[in-house]
Amino acid sequence: MNAVLAAIGDELLSGVRQEKNACFMAWHLHNKGAEVKAIEVLSDEESEITDLLSRWIGRTDLLILSGGLGPTHDDRTRYAIAKYLGCELYSDPLYDKILARVKDNPERLARLEKSRSTQSMIPVKAQPVYNPTGSALGIKFTLQGTKVIALPGVPMEYEAMTRQELPEIFAPDDKHVWASVIILGLPEMTIAERIPEVIGNTDLHVSILPAFPQVELIIRGKPEDVDKAENLTRSRFNDVLPKGCKSLAEAVLYEAKINHAKISCSESCTGGLVGAALTDIAGSSESFMGSAVTYSNEAKQKILGVDEKILADFGAVSEQCAIAMAQGSLRIYDSDYAVSITGIAGPDGGTESKPVGTVWFGVASREKARAFVKVLPGSRAEIRTRAVRFALAELWRTLHNKIPAPEL
Amino acid sequence: MNAVLAAIGDELLSGVRQEKNACFMAWHLHNKGAEVKAIEVLSDEESEITDLLSRWIGRTDLLILSGGLGPTHDDRTRYAIAKYLGCELYSDPLYDKILARVKDNPERLARLEKSRSTQSMIPVKAQPVYNPTGSALGIKFTLQGTKVIALPGVPMEYEAMTRQELPEIFAPDDKHVWASVIILGLPEMTIAERIPEVIGNTDLHVSILPAFPQVELIIRGKPEDVDKAENLTRSRFNDVLPKGCKSLAEAVLYEAKINHAKISCSESCTGGLVGAALTDIAGSSESFMGSAVTYSNEAKQKILGVDEKILADFGAVSEQCAIAMAQGSLRIYDSDYAVSITGIAGPDGGTESKPVGTVWFGVASREKARAFVKVLPGSRAEIRTRAVRFALAELWRTLHNKIPAPEL
Repeated sequence: MNAVLAAIGDELLSGVRQEKNACFMAWHLHNKGAEVKAIEVLSDEESEITDLLSRWIGRTDLLILSGGLGPTHDDRTRYAIAKYLGCELYSDPLYDKILARVKDNPERLARLEKSRSTQSMIPVKAQPVYNPTGSALGIKFTLQGTKVIALPGVPMEYEAMTRQELPEIFAPDDKHVWASVIILGLPEMTIAERIPEVIGNTDLHVSILPAFPQVELIIRGKPEDVDKAENLTRSRFNDVLPKGCKSLAEAVLYEAKINHAKISCSESCTGGLVGAALTDIAGSSESFMGSAVTYSNEAKQKILGVDEKILADFGAVSEQCAIAMAQGSLRIYDSDYAVSITGIAGPDGGTESKPVGTVWFGVASREKARAFVKVLPGSRAEIRTRAVRFALAELWRTLHNKIPAPEL
Repeated sequence: MNAVLAAIGDELLSGVRQEKNACFMAWHLHNKGAEVKAIEVLSDEESEITDLLSRWIGRTDLLILSGGLGPTHDDRTRYAIAKYLGCELYSDPLYDKILARVKDNPERLARLEKSRSTQSMIPVKAQPVYNPTGSALGIKFTLQGTKVIALPGVPMEYEAMTRQELPEIFAPDDKHVWASVIILGLPEMTIAERIPEVIGNTDLHVSILPAFPQVELIIRGKPEDVDKAENLTRSRFNDVLPKGCKSLAEAVLYEAKINHAKISCSESCTGGLVGAALTDIAGSSESFMGSAVTYSNEAKQKILGVDEKILADFGAVSEQCAIAMAQGSLRIYDSDYAVSITGIAGPDGGTESKPVGTVWFGVASREKARAFVKVLPGSRAEIRTRAVRFALAELWRTLHNKIPAPEL
């Protein structure tokens, strides 16, 4: 099966909003062995939408449109489809099922009743698609072998409706599988050169995604091929996250769990991003105690017990402060392992000896503590994101080796 | 001027990576009055790339490609361009300038020397584009009135190279401007109905971006039109973020600054996301003291001083706990205003009386404290993101009105 994904909306072409539905859908289609031929973003113009339909109907098995089904003047998808099919629109009674959901809320009911003249309208030659979480009906029809589904652009609605309309894509099965192998501390090229049989295997589809200090390999194909390639890849590297861990945060929580270890953090320049990454994983409360975000020097002293003298003599961005922050986190959360981050994310605040991007990391267990420094490139956001990865990578290595580990 | 943005890479079509460069570039082009006609994502196949060139050269002023310039076997952009132009490739000496940057790092130098046979190669009928942050040269040429620029897909490199090659797009000027107006607590339709002169003005380009409890209007056009529309819009609503504030976090920090107020948080289910949002803004250290991420009940007691009896009698997701967490944050950070979040982000942990999505928010000043509850829809990630917005909105209203404010 092949598919084309299209997103409609001036806000996507003018850069005010990032398109996200296509990536979600492409991932699930690909996992079932379907090929996405193209992703296209187009404007709300009716002629652009009819052009898209002309271009792809008859040339792809599945065409999913998202966006342009709301109640406002610039939502043109339903009218474009009717024009393309050469038919009128009618108000579908399925809309009443959506109204029934808000029958106890008079204000929302009145609002939805008002939108009936747009959001319930379906081209006569097409069928409605129920919207279980939002208010606009979707539209579907099949023509010249192409199944066309037009859905709202709101990601929550798009996801619920694709799951409902394409159950075969979301059903668990073992015909096509994928594996993720995350390797730490090596550049992309070195990794590729060490597994030529995997990279060169035309039965596999291998993606290499560098995000230093990690590189993720995504291997997709038939189960037996994927299995063999995953095992071979894992055997060629030392610092590989455990099987099934799709992120550094998952790997940290996995090691903490099997070690019955409690973990915590203390963060300055990352402002809570390490805690956010760990708690992004459901069930993290089993091992993760919390993170002390101490942005001010006063908070570092008062909450984490960093010695005033350390801040005066070495500054907040220093080996001594990073170690004291990690040890402070260990103490206040009563945890077994803690990681700390203190750095200069910029754009201001850099000096000659400590330029923007200078980040000290501390890691402490109940027995030992150590620190290391990195000068990370990029914007404020990039420096912060990279710092999170270094902190989690180091925490993972520490848990994995059960001691404060040497530098990555 | 009009432009077409294309992203090349199998990893984008198979959903393993989200395309981001097009959105960045579209925003900047649109701010200079340029129109983005289309965004296309295509595979690494050479024939797909030559098709794209055939489709758009002569039909758009600017065509920017991203991706496919790396050293690995599936990077085909340079070969596709050479094929399209009907010419050979040569190794450009500009690559030595890139090597010179890493001359003190023998390992990296050796790696880059090895990639010379791919990353320095330029079609004879095109010119090289210097890469100030990465190692692959870009490629540019002009044909049939279309300026074509092919750049690496790494966002940091793409951004640096577009800034370097298209200085006119990134130069500050006052010919085309945009304004953002962020309104709290009202649905999209109500807002649109209250400003018909703005929505209906064909000289303006207005985007409505709902992210409850906020709706952002982005108004673009000529300076005088944008100014008038922004002022009119601001006059029609009560809960509007201050002029120039592009996010809730910015508005919170702005109010804190003009009130000389110190702020802090305490977070459970959001795990640090509120602190991360505030510290995303450069200069936040002036007002933001920190956030106590207390994921475990023990941490809530020990660090924030939440009474054991509150946790036993009402649970961590309760009005009493939210208030105690906000007051605890106020105390340990010695801040003037604090906001707290404690809820059930799911997918597990819900009960009949407290379903998944139940989130209690506390807000405290030195005089008062109060709490409110929301049952937020969506996945774990969506519940967390929405909770962050509610917390920041409430903190902003509290700072703005200088008292714990009524519920949104």
